[in-house]
Amino acid sequence: MSSSKSTLDSFGDGLRVVVIGASGGIGEALLRALSKADNVETVFAYARSEINFYHEKIKASPIDIINEDTVRNAAQHCGEELDLVIVATGMLQDENLPEKSFKDFDLGAMQKCFAVNTFGPALVAKYFLPLLRTDRKSVFSVLSARVSSISDNELGGWHSYRASKVALNMMIKNFAIEIGRRHKQAVILALHPGTVDTRLSKPFQGNVKHDIFSPAQAAEYLLKVTDQCAATDSGKCFDWNGDLILP
Amino acid sequence: MSSSKSTLDSFGDGLRVVVIGASGGIGEALLRALSKADNVETVFAYARSEINFYHEKIKASPIDIINEDTVRNAAQHCGEELDLVIVATGMLQDENLPEKSFKDFDLGAMQKCFAVNTFGPALVAKYFLPLLRTDRKSVFSVLSARVSSISDNELGGWHSYRASKVALNMMIKNFAIEIGRRHKQAVILALHPGTVDTRLSKPFQGNVKHDIFSPAQAAEYLLKVTDQCAATDSGKCFDWNGDLILP
Repeated sequence: MSSSKSTLDSFGDGLRVVVIGASGGIGEALLRALSKADNVETVFAYARSEINFYHEKIKASPIDIINEDTVRNAAQHCGEELDLVIVATGMLQDENLPEKSFKDFDLGAMQKCFAVNTFGPALVAKYFLPLLRTDRKSVFSVLSARVSSISDNELGGWHSYRASKVALNMMIKNFAIEIGRRHKQAVILALHPGTVDTRLSKPFQGNVKHDIFSPAQAAEYLLKVTDQCAATDSGKCFDWNGDLILP
Repeated sequence: MSSSKSTLDSFGDGLRVVVIGASGGIGEALLRALSKADNVETVFAYARSEINFYHEKIKASPIDIINEDTVRNAAQHCGEELDLVIVATGMLQDENLPEKSFKDFDLGAMQKCFAVNTFGPALVAKYFLPLLRTDRKSVFSVLSARVSSISDNELGGWHSYRASKVALNMMIKNFAIEIGRRHKQAVILALHPGTVDTRLSKPFQGNVKHDIFSPAQAAEYLLKVTDQCAATDSGKCFDWNGDLILP
């Protein structure tokens, strides 16, 4: 594994970073990129299923973000003074998801979609936001989506997915306000990774008219945005290119 | 009961209107106002608990918006060709709600808040949107809240409530797009009633610096906005005064 100049230059040295959802397509690509970075000291990797990438910097432990005990345990596992926490989880498809029409609504499917996309990241925030180091820049980010934008919504459909992601964006705004009161260099972000060649997007790639990124490309872009962001960006949603996505 | 010039002049005559959540403070006030209106023929009143207002125009039946069978039954009870459907439900407070801090998150409380504020209205939409009459203006509206605005959020807190209401606003935008394709005079709205003297707002009225409306005032304002709205407003969120609330 070759080492590379870090994409996290703005953070400092001896970085302690966390990837939650580390067994997914984007999560694993983040693990690979972060492990290679010279200034990253430890990568805490948490996932519900097995993580298929190993590196000496990685310390792994199980998590199920909608099981509060496991979130609390993971937070105890990594300890304090975290520089970066990335929540790389999300669900789009299930038996009754995504809905093409309001006629497809199913209460169980809605509950599951919001549990994974909104409530899980909220539980992660509950235990991990207090662990961010406060003496320099630190970042807490979640994967959101361009379709979380109400103002940008012209096509409709994907009701629960869209709604669960805009709910997540609201949480991110709230976290930024609350954390920002005492930690002036904290940055809380919602990030749209683009359409990435993963299991999540596979059934829908045929309709995509723009570029589809490899997980490695997406991880590179996300870390670049993470590196470039500052406290004034906190609470907002950005795409892979660093462009603001309006609510 | 004196009759009055209708606040729903823009709709036409012989109106068949639906109030869901008709036992709540705002719901009951809507029943009273709608029953008085000359051009309203029938008021279908649905609620989980007992409705404490009776008028000869009212046809009542039970509903629990997070129990799909009862929503389907209510839709069959009122039949087709509806002019106006108002979903006047919502919850703010419970054992662990609203959260002042992310440290207060409780998975069960989040699930309950979203079930009532987001999933329930979505199930209502599933069965009632197809019943809107399509030969002239008809309206489907839900109660949202000013704190559903991400761009307007400066105070933080009330995490689940804010997030569940912005998720509802996204649903409303989606419904407007889907219904608007075949019903050009449909208006789908999210409405902020202001702070109203009801059970929902009671514990928080001490912090309110603006006017607190009686349920009757709120109902009057909401029906005025409903009367003034047009298809170009569909999918948006407005306050009691008809002012746009940005996402």
